[in-house]
Amino acid sequence: MTAKIIDGKAFAADVRARVAEQVAAMKAAHGITPGLAVVLVGEDPASQVYVRSKGEKTREVGMNSFEYKLPADVPEAELYALIDKLNADPQVHGILCQFPVPPHLSERDIIARISAEKDVDGLSVINAGRLATGQKAMVSCTPLGCLMMLRDERGDLSGLDAVVIGRSNLVGKPMGQLLLRDNCTVTMTHSRTRDLAEAIRRADIVVAAVGVPEMVKGDWIKPGATVIDVGMNRLPPEEEGGKGRLVGDVDFAAAKEVAGAITPVPGGVGPMTIACLLANTLTATCRANGLPEPEGLTA
Amino acid sequence: MTAKIIDGKAFAADVRARVAEQVAAMKAAHGITPGLAVVLVGEDPASQVYVRSKGEKTREVGMNSFEYKLPADVPEAELYALIDKLNADPQVHGILCQFPVPPHLSERDIIARISAEKDVDGLSVINAGRLATGQKAMVSCTPLGCLMMLRDERGDLSGLDAVVIGRSNLVGKPMGQLLLRDNCTVTMTHSRTRDLAEAIRRADIVVAAVGVPEMVKGDWIKPGATVIDVGMNRLPPEEEGGKGRLVGDVDFAAAKEVAGAITPVPGGVGPMTIACLLANTLTATCRANGLPEPEGLTA
Repeated sequence: MTAKIIDGKAFAADVRARVAEQVAAMKAAHGITPGLAVVLVGEDPASQVYVRSKGEKTREVGMNSFEYKLPADVPEAELYALIDKLNADPQVHGILCQFPVPPHLSERDIIARISAEKDVDGLSVINAGRLATGQKAMVSCTPLGCLMMLRDERGDLSGLDAVVIGRSNLVGKPMGQLLLRDNCTVTMTHSRTRDLAEAIRRADIVVAAVGVPEMVKGDWIKPGATVIDVGMNRLPPEEEGGKGRLVGDVDFAAAKEVAGAITPVPGGVGPMTIACLLANTLTATCRANGLPEPEGLTA
Repeated sequence: MTAKIIDGKAFAADVRARVAEQVAAMKAAHGITPGLAVVLVGEDPASQVYVRSKGEKTREVGMNSFEYKLPADVPEAELYALIDKLNADPQVHGILCQFPVPPHLSERDIIARISAEKDVDGLSVINAGRLATGQKAMVSCTPLGCLMMLRDERGDLSGLDAVVIGRSNLVGKPMGQLLLRDNCTVTMTHSRTRDLAEAIRRADIVVAAVGVPEMVKGDWIKPGATVIDVGMNRLPPEEEGGKGRLVGDVDFAAAKEVAGAITPVPGGVGPMTIACLLANTLTATCRANGLPEPEGLTA
């Protein structure tokens, strides 16, 4: 058996198309345009690329993109004044600050400053608490994207055995909460887990988010399981000056012979991140205006 | 093999003694007396008993107990004014409102009104979020008590397989977070779990918090496992006018023949709740005054 390869690029494009459709309907029916504000501090080249790409994709789905570039030495108070202004601005429904920020700033404090309702990256303590207690939350983009793919692949997840590998605040822990909310039996595994292979062998759903190249072996996978690989690991280059190959946390070549469906790396979960950011911005806009949650785009 | 029966009453008395010792040391060294404020709305007889008992135990460990009794029809604004006053009072380190409250009041809003630092019941969204993201939190008393018992019984929990049965916000979910933080491999099970018996058979640690009398059978338990039974279920009375027997979620008689250690019902987890409330009040006092966390009394 060879697994279905889940095409993350196509899936993300579909999510963005559905966001665009609902944005158009919202403009037509209510005259509301969702707005996403992105704050960039300093001139990190990779961050500049990300911010530009987010801005383009935001506009593509018909939302307003507000971009703020602050110098690397911006005083904390000035950054907070901007965040406070954005928190209060009814045109702005989502706010994110591109990380990393220069060392004189605290990422945790910046996140705490952003209104929980506009925290479309789902990073704040309040959103973690809402998720953990089953309330409406902003859910961080990567686990939300994984959940969308899993629901698309498996339909109702109720009663399925799910194993999450890795317990980061950004992926593993919220992923576990989301799967539990969807009625999976959820096992959280990590570096101290005694027999990871055995735990994975029982799982209908495997989400790997541990950052160890090809750690999950093909013969650990239960036949027919759905495997979501969040890993993004750069192998050492094979030749001098070359760039190493990008691989996930799962031995893809072997696992795809056993799994029912699997995401590749690259081209699996990665492209979902921005799509889910836009989905979250739409969700935040709906909530801010007392409209129903967008269909199929929330946890 | 017959399991060690964990004596919750003795364990709780020991926790209270350790709290009392640290309270005395804190008074001597810093002149600080921890204070717990309990707010009771209305005249529910069971709640009156609980509040009286909490007050007595608070004074027994050398803390200040502040008790507030409000009429059942107290306006929300008046209750909130009291909470705001207690939030601002440096003599008050912990605040709890005895639930249930009359229907014109919202438990969720009351919890949100109490400062997260003084929320010694660990019920607020912010404390759930802090727990979920690995920060210092106030942890709700029952799961904290279970954790203390587990650490006492097993020492280092790292690498142990733990199964939590039930996913309530009050017990199951925070219990899972605490066990994960202590490096267990944690499986969250619930009513939709397909094969609960099989999941439990693998577990070194079982925490049952589901509210179904004697649901967990003796032959589901792995030999030597530690079984913590949070259930408190009243069976139908055997004779007219009689009171039904109190049982847990685990078939105690059968399970104690297999487990390594097990809590009885009653007399297991139950007595730990007030002890952990006092431990949390001490912890809150330490944090409010920049003192080190109390040894062995926190998550």
